[in-house]
Amino acid sequence: MEQIKGVAASKGISIGSVLLYQTGDPKVSKKQTNDVLGEIARFEAAVQTAVATLGELHERALQTVGEKEAAVFEIHQMMLEDLDFLEGVKDCITSESCNAEYAVQQAGGQLAEMFAGMDDEYMRERASDVRDVSARVVRVLCGCDGNPLEGVKGQVIVAAEDLMPSETIQMDTSKVLAFVTRLGSKISHSAILARTMGIPAVVGLREGFDTLKAGQEIIVDGFNGDVYLGPDEKTLAHFKNERDLYLEKKRVLRSLIGKRAVSLDGKEIEINANIGHPADIALCEENDAGGIGLFRSEFLYMESQDFPSEDFQFESYRDILQKMAGKRVIVRTLDLGADKHAPYFKLPHEDNPAMGYRAIRICLRQPDIFITQLRALHRASVFGKLAIMFPMITSLKEVLEIKKVVALVKCQLDEEHIPYSKEIEYGIMIETPAAVMATDLLAREVDFFSIGTNDLTQYTLACDRMNASLSELYDPRNLSVLRMIALTVRNAHKAGIWAGICGESAGDLELTGLYLKLGVDELSVSPASVLEVRNKVLHTDSREVDDSMLNLYTV
Amino acid sequence: MEQIKGVAASKGISIGSVLLYQTGDPKVSKKQTNDVLGEIARFEAAVQTAVATLGELHERALQTVGEKEAAVFEIHQMMLEDLDFLEGVKDCITSESCNAEYAVQQAGGQLAEMFAGMDDEYMRERASDVRDVSARVVRVLCGCDGNPLEGVKGQVIVAAEDLMPSETIQMDTSKVLAFVTRLGSKISHSAILARTMGIPAVVGLREGFDTLKAGQEIIVDGFNGDVYLGPDEKTLAHFKNERDLYLEKKRVLRSLIGKRAVSLDGKEIEINANIGHPADIALCEENDAGGIGLFRSEFLYMESQDFPSEDFQFESYRDILQKMAGKRVIVRTLDLGADKHAPYFKLPHEDNPAMGYRAIRICLRQPDIFITQLRALHRASVFGKLAIMFPMITSLKEVLEIKKVVALVKCQLDEEHIPYSKEIEYGIMIETPAAVMATDLLAREVDFFSIGTNDLTQYTLACDRMNASLSELYDPRNLSVLRMIALTVRNAHKAGIWAGICGESAGDLELTGLYLKLGVDELSVSPASVLEVRNKVLHTDSREVDDSMLNLYTV
Repeated sequence: MEQIKGVAASKGISIGSVLLYQTGDPKVSKKQTNDVLGEIARFEAAVQTAVATLGELHERALQTVGEKEAAVFEIHQMMLEDLDFLEGVKDCITSESCNAEYAVQQAGGQLAEMFAGMDDEYMRERASDVRDVSARVVRVLCGCDGNPLEGVKGQVIVAAEDLMPSETIQMDTSKVLAFVTRLGSKISHSAILARTMGIPAVVGLREGFDTLKAGQEIIVDGFNGDVYLGPDEKTLAHFKNERDLYLEKKRVLRSLIGKRAVSLDGKEIEINANIGHPADIALCEENDAGGIGLFRSEFLYMESQDFPSEDFQFESYRDILQKMAGKRVIVRTLDLGADKHAPYFKLPHEDNPAMGYRAIRICLRQPDIFITQLRALHRASVFGKLAIMFPMITSLKEVLEIKKVVALVKCQLDEEHIPYSKEIEYGIMIETPAAVMATDLLAREVDFFSIGTNDLTQYTLACDRMNASLSELYDPRNLSVLRMIALTVRNAHKAGIWAGICGESAGDLELTGLYLKLGVDELSVSPASVLEVRNKVLHTDSREVDDSMLNLYTV
Repeated sequence: MEQIKGVAASKGISIGSVLLYQTGDPKVSKKQTNDVLGEIARFEAAVQTAVATLGELHERALQTVGEKEAAVFEIHQMMLEDLDFLEGVKDCITSESCNAEYAVQQAGGQLAEMFAGMDDEYMRERASDVRDVSARVVRVLCGCDGNPLEGVKGQVIVAAEDLMPSETIQMDTSKVLAFVTRLGSKISHSAILARTMGIPAVVGLREGFDTLKAGQEIIVDGFNGDVYLGPDEKTLAHFKNERDLYLEKKRVLRSLIGKRAVSLDGKEIEINANIGHPADIALCEENDAGGIGLFRSEFLYMESQDFPSEDFQFESYRDILQKMAGKRVIVRTLDLGADKHAPYFKLPHEDNPAMGYRAIRICLRQPDIFITQLRALHRASVFGKLAIMFPMITSLKEVLEIKKVVALVKCQLDEEHIPYSKEIEYGIMIETPAAVMATDLLAREVDFFSIGTNDLTQYTLACDRMNASLSELYDPRNLSVLRMIALTVRNAHKAGIWAGICGESAGDLELTGLYLKLGVDELSVSPASVLEVRNKVLHTDSREVDDSMLNLYTV
């Protein structure tokens, strides 16, 4: 038995035989031609065919995996209409008097390499889109653009260099037990799709991929990123058991869909999802999240080459609100800085960026950026149930400044006769110790608190949460952090506002009972944890929880 | 009128005429000699003379500026006995058949350059010691080693490239109104000496230095690091007034020496000094500090090339305690990491070092370092009144671990029949929000709290205090920080222990009244601020201070 290690990209365990799946460019060799114009005509016809197929795939994807994932096919269509690409291929045919297949592969390869060399994970991942589109045209030219799993009998584990979105979507998923790939990362299309489709996946196997053989029995452990080749009886029995337990747990959790999260002693808590991309909305629905408790708006900035326009942002927010169909969406305003950057922001180098120029500090000092985002949010607010949340608050003064900017934005929209909802909730993240210690004053100025336990823990303990050598010290269950949560909830309720938790420890099942006891109103967790937390609430009696240690204050 | 800008190195204002003081190497040219042995003999005789003079200077310095500053002359004597240096000069005379003056300048220059290129401010400053020693020998060889201010009539402002310690000490300071230099930093010998002697100084004028002319009238503003050349009447009048106010204020403050710090409503507060080097003990005495409220022990590590031995540390602590003659000395254990490094510690690179592997985190994970320091401290404790303070505490668990190590050290010393005081106080810094929120529990385990407002402010506000672009945000008067101070003092008193403040805002005169009102027991400030704070206490009625905003807690 051999074990190889990759990146856990989609949860679950599968056991089955390997299908070595040939992807990417079909084997193409350079051929001289006398009929340059003929090759150009072949190329143009192939592009037409590919565009038509992409249209069909788009329709199909809309049905099966939702609008966001389907959008990639539109993007591919646009790539095929890109003049640089088209001219590049034609130039190659003309200047080298070569066959269309070779020219497409050359021009596509160059474009893909350009993307692959970019200093941004998202843009690097786009290299695989370019390869996908080029390969599609080459396959049309070769006459081999049929269904990739045609003829496969029974279920298989698909092993590929890198799965391209169109290939994944074209597959008959009833035949696919799992994906394993040589390339790819947690955020590559294939990983996202695998998660959406609920198929276990391990990506980024690198050299380990070479040891896979067609037809071989393997175990794919999508929890840990492990692949076992030719497993022995004991391993097989262990993972079969694990798989069955997981499927049973999934079954139990899925039975909770549609249920309220009420504890044994009758306390109800709202369970929402944290997401960072419109693509994840499907996961919220699938896991029956009550709403979105934290929508990180950074994707709009990190996927752009320049400051995203008001209209562009408006459309994104509108789409999100419409998709959530009346369920509340709490959008957190820009939280760049620290470890998240967009190059055009030109943020300075800092010795301690986690305690640096970031989030609301940027927004208050560069109000143009802030106003653009707030205008877009307000304009979108009529399309659903919007709440706006401000990060990294440290004082009442900041909140009062923010309220002035919000008032200004409303005033502008009124003058421009642009409608916005009068029911937007405005809240703040409680993620600095300073904010905690001023919750009595802050609670009078906002509609809700959302406690960001990740940052709150690192500042409270003066311990960088990304610093691996301090992992023992970084402890969201530290008594002082829990006391801060207790204090925040208490001050929120005294002022008549609600308080939630949106850091990672919102999903810490060891703390669920304590949260119920404290009267926390909302927990916002990763979509995959929504049902787990609901399950925990349903089995907890908060009267049994001892919170006596949290009472520090006797004055 | 022209204004040039340097580094404010010693407070005060002086107005007077410039004496351009020729320092460094006298002009020396290379001469061929046939008498190599004769030159070597001249060199050796000159070294003898220089060593003797250094001995006299050492005696004189002991009388005038104290033991630590005097030590530099011993170091210079040792440099002159260093074989590398002596052999270097002799090799140069032999191989180049040149005059001794030239050889000394060459060999000394090379050594100085080596120091100047080092990656450590302290070692770089040692380059000027080497130049000083070489120049002394050259001056002996040239026959020009007399008193540098001989023949000067009246008082002058001494303008020099860089003042060497021996030159400064040899000066008739009754003739010197101020120092200004081209080179140097806040911690160069000349800056330290100027402060010790109470003479205003501006160093590091760089190109601006070239505009100074001999005999010209200038104003030296040692508060702001400004020098005014040929001032107009208005500027002159302004600075004369400032100077007189400062001198009057100094006179008033000096009249407070020997007095207790008792407020108008009868509250007494202990005022101690923060220092980081034994050299600063003289400043504590001069400013009548009640004791040392924070002795940073990092100098022992940063001035060493390797981990300082137990004996070396013991001797340092013993000397400090003896000099303080029964007044309490609170030594803070090792607080390296963040922005302070000693290369042999081999600390890892960190993305956010201020929230990284530092201080007690190092000590608890590398107990050898910790035990060595604690053994040295305990051994020294019989020579005075010692308290030991532990930095960067975030939990009760850490304090319990520390107490185990202290118990181990005592047990070792008992077994070795080495005496230590039974009256050592053990305290902790309260400088993380986590510590503040656990003060009720921590107070039961220690003898005192000392609130480190610098770090506490930066962690509470999540704002790097060294980040210049956030200086508006970094606010030790932020309400949440003040509430943390109030909570800490309250919990200390409830447990019957005392609580002091040793961060920079301990000396913030705007807060003195609040500290009195809260019942803060001790303030530890820079030596130069001791009398100012005492003055403020004497004129404050804490009953007039409104601290109602500090009461956050009603549970």
